[in-house]
Amino acid sequence: MVNRAFYPGRFQPFHNGHLQAVKYILSKTDEVVIGVMAAQFNFMKDNPFSAGERVEMIKLALREYWDKTYVIPIENVPNNLEWVPHVLTLIPSINVVFTNNPLVKMLFQYYNIKVKGIPWFNEKYFSGRYIRKLIASNGDWEKLVPREIAEYIKRINGVERIKELFKSEEVVLPIR
Amino acid sequence: MVNRAFYPGRFQPFHNGHLQAVKYILSKTDEVVIGVMAAQFNFMKDNPFSAGERVEMIKLALREYWDKTYVIPIENVPNNLEWVPHVLTLIPSINVVFTNNPLVKMLFQYYNIKVKGIPWFNEKYFSGRYIRKLIASNGDWEKLVPREIAEYIKRINGVERIKELFKSEEVVLPIR
Amino acid sequence: MVNRAFYPGRFQPFHNGHLQAVKYILSKTDEVVIGVMAAQFNFMKDNPFSAGERVEMIKLALREYWDKTYVIPIENVPNNLEWVPHVLTLIPSINVVFTNNPLVKMLFQYYNIKVKGIPWFNEKYFSGRYIRKLIASNGDWEKLVPREIAEYIKRINGVERIKELFKSEEVVLPIR
Amino acid sequence: MVNRAFYPGRFQPFHNGHLQAVKYILSKTDEVVIGVMAAQFNFMKDNPFSAGERVEMIKLALREYWDKTYVIPIENVPNNLEWVPHVLTLIPSINVVFTNNPLVKMLFQYYNIKVKGIPWFNEKYFSGRYIRKLIASNGDWEKLVPREIAEYIKRINGVERIKELFKSEEVVLPIR
Amino acid sequence: MVNRAFYPGRFQPFHNGHLQAVKYILSKTDEVVIGVMAAQFNFMKDNPFSAGERVEMIKLALREYWDKTYVIPIENVPNNLEWVPHVLTLIPSINVVFTNNPLVKMLFQYYNIKVKGIPWFNEKYFSGRYIRKLIASNGDWEKLVPREIAEYIKRINGVERIKELFKSEEVVLPIR
Amino acid sequence: MVNRAFYPGRFQPFHNGHLQAVKYILSKTDEVVIGVMAAQFNFMKDNPFSAGERVEMIKLALREYWDKTYVIPIENVPNNLEWVPHVLTLIPSINVVFTNNPLVKMLFQYYNIKVKGIPWFNEKYFSGRYIRKLIASNGDWEKLVPREIAEYIKRINGVERIKELFKSEEVVLPIR
Repeated sequence: MVNRAFYPGRFQPFHNGHLQAVKYILSKTDEVVIGVMAAQFNFMKDNPFSAGERVEMIKLALREYWDKTYVIPIENVPNNLEWVPHVLTLIPSINVVFTNNPLVKMLFQYYNIKVKGIPWFNEKYFSGRYIRKLIASNGDWEKLVPREIAEYIKRINGVERIKELFKSEEVVLPIR
Repeated sequence: MVNRAFYPGRFQPFHNGHLQAVKYILSKTDEVVIGVMAAQFNFMKDNPFSAGERVEMIKLALREYWDKTYVIPIENVPNNLEWVPHVLTLIPSINVVFTNNPLVKMLFQYYNIKVKGIPWFNEKYFSGRYIRKLIASNGDWEKLVPREIAEYIKRINGVERIKELFKSEEVVLPIR
Repeated sequence: MVNRAFYPGRFQPFHNGHLQAVKYILSKTDEVVIGVMAAQFNFMKDNPFSAGERVEMIKLALREYWDKTYVIPIENVPNNLEWVPHVLTLIPSINVVFTNNPLVKMLFQYYNIKVKGIPWFNEKYFSGRYIRKLIASNGDWEKLVPREIAEYIKRINGVERIKELFKSEEVVLPIR
Repeated sequence: MVNRAFYPGRFQPFHNGHLQAVKYILSKTDEVVIGVMAAQFNFMKDNPFSAGERVEMIKLALREYWDKTYVIPIENVPNNLEWVPHVLTLIPSINVVFTNNPLVKMLFQYYNIKVKGIPWFNEKYFSGRYIRKLIASNGDWEKLVPREIAEYIKRINGVERIKELFKSEEVVLPIR
Repeated sequence: MVNRAFYPGRFQPFHNGHLQAVKYILSKTDEVVIGVMAAQFNFMKDNPFSAGERVEMIKLALREYWDKTYVIPIENVPNNLEWVPHVLTLIPSINVVFTNNPLVKMLFQYYNIKVKGIPWFNEKYFSGRYIRKLIASNGDWEKLVPREIAEYIKRINGVERIKELFKSEEVVLPIR
Repeated sequence: MVNRAFYPGRFQPFHNGHLQAVKYILSKTDEVVIGVMAAQFNFMKDNPFSAGERVEMIKLALREYWDKTYVIPIENVPNNLEWVPHVLTLIPSINVVFTNNPLVKMLFQYYNIKVKGIPWFNEKYFSGRYIRKLIASNGDWEKLVPREIAEYIKRINGVERIKELFKSEEVVLPIR
């Protein structure tokens, strides 16, 4: 029987912390299902990349682990208690969830699914929010993500996109 | 002809103020339809309890008034002008709404439905928000809700749930 | 601990078969949660009554059982596996489901919830579809529903509504 | 005070019958609001044209009546009783509806809005369904629609689109 | 071939700045499609008027340009990249978009649609937000909107509505 | 630059025809994105398996091609013209679509995306519908799917599920 873990995140963008987390998870289980959460959001300051772009990034970073990996975009739903079953209808069967998010932990435990933390994962140094700020302000962001992802972001003009989205902050967005 | 009132609220949780409001309404009408609003939300800091849990609480508190009571969960909708007809398709026919909320009042009056206030209802002392804060901070919340509801909240580990949700405040929730 | 059953149906309209089923269920459990399914549909040939009208009907028929009864409107969802958790977020906690519908049975059992049949319930004699046809064709439908419900249907002009909806059958409805 | 009528339809495509109906309505009122219903559907056998294409067609046909005309795309909703308020939030205020559809009539009358028929409108000769069939089978359809609309349909390759959609009939569509 | 522009906005309310923008656009193109965005919102502090009311206002202000004008209500969608195709299925074909909103510009350019600014449009003097504040505080708002629109807003009791919505600010709205 | 193809299907279940199609596509391109369409449907006669189960099946069948494969569940949307952009926000960038479905072809071509057929794919011998019927009637279905998939279906009690869903055909499903 395959041991398979679920690892949810927004991956805006997928960075070195995520990469280390996946390596850690794969040291504990046979396969990992990466949930690209908030899949319906893109071109927003906090969610600049589309789900498809995030899938493409993750493939670039996990090329050598791909035979043990699934990457599944999952849209958010308003009802938290419906969120876990929603996830479970979209992913292969799993027997453990890896997360440090307290709400995610509480919700999966509500459904009697085992949840583990990622012990050494330090949000202070590995944070999508921080990386997006660095990108917007010409900071030194490239070393915080896998090399292939830095190239990808630049190739799709992601730097300009994020700068523009940060500028738009004051503007009333026409889209809810 | 039955005189029937609609009384909407989120009831997070149902507290002594709500109980007094229901008693007041039933002194003025034959039956009351309690609308458990924002029914799709749960496990959120401001909406910790599911609609079903709120229905169960209300039954515990209104046992002796139950023959005159309907409790109907109602999901919110984005279009305010569609909200009143949405409510009306889900509840028995009513001839008056009791509320102190100015928007609810304005919307029902738009549809020519009579709206009355609950004159002595003081939000300062009876507030779900205040009770949730007390629960999160080990305050003296139990006396503010009917005894059966305090027991229910403790039985379903609602205290721990609310504390955890208050802790999560700083965390970016994965769910919209 | 309360033993509480869930009894789902569309109740278009609530008839003598449903009434007998509720009595049977209440002979086996302490309380019953009646789920008014397909709550978003109304003014359709197969779903003529709104959820609110169905709640009102059920109250009229179950007046003497009301202290043991909850009536909860529940909208359908497209994802069958998400349907059970969707229901569970809207109703008080239950420990058994009563149904003769094979899909409903399969779905609740998927979530390890006990399902029981209603042994003597004969769909041949107790059928909403049959009653709607009788109403549309001036048949002898009144004896098949509780007296209060027959009166209610006539009072809200439900007979004319159903006749009109049956006539419309050939017309392309403007509403999906 | 302006007398303004609502005239709903799918207009797949807008044909000479619709044109005569609009002229009739404008002989009775000051302005007409044309509701392009089922606005979310397109590239379907029964709904080949997008809402935008239908708006564009109607403008071509009603050029000389345009100062008295509004054309508003409106998506269908599943709840029939919510449909009328949904429509009313999207259109200018009206005081009469013109329709021969019995369900549309019943629903607007439920909200105490005056409904009138279009007496001479004969569905036998003026039918979108019939015109779509003629288009699919190289029949003589052009004379049944305003000349500008026939040209428009041909210019956007609507004839080929409809033929292809009719061919697809046997195929399981991948889209619900 | 018609040159047709798209001009999106929320128009809460349509003011003199919008009017000048439309005149400017019509000096550059043959026809303008005015998109009434966020069409599902109303009776909110930032979105007081329904889409239908906004359509009605725009007609009053553009009476003499109406033969070159389409006004189309469009609901927002959560997925920004799906927003442009969503808009395009609801409006007549266009070949240019006029906007000063950076996100709207970025999204249409993503789909290779030409975007132009409105050079002299000064948000400082022409702002719906500013006008709503003036209305709420008995300021001198009337001169900032076309005369017919000021009359319309007063006729539908829009001043009272906005004042009430501004008062409600502190209240937890029951509607998401 | 990677050549990447999109291959959409419902895969109820993934069978030998699909396997051959994927091999064919991978002989023409570098990578394939398999779209598991109608992802929101499951436990239906025509859609017995959840999206997650279908992902799991496809992994079992494509183990040796997995380094060139993405499998992405995609929910259907009602608006056909919005379907292509919806797909594109969820998948890595592609430069060709492989399909024999005429509507899918028409829709992708509308957005100027290259579409190719799968020349030797014979629906007569390779059909999910046919396989589901065989499963329901104890026919010889196992040889029509990859061995690992036959084992998987049996392991999750998929045979019993399909038989039950076929039996339910006469029953009014409670879920839309």
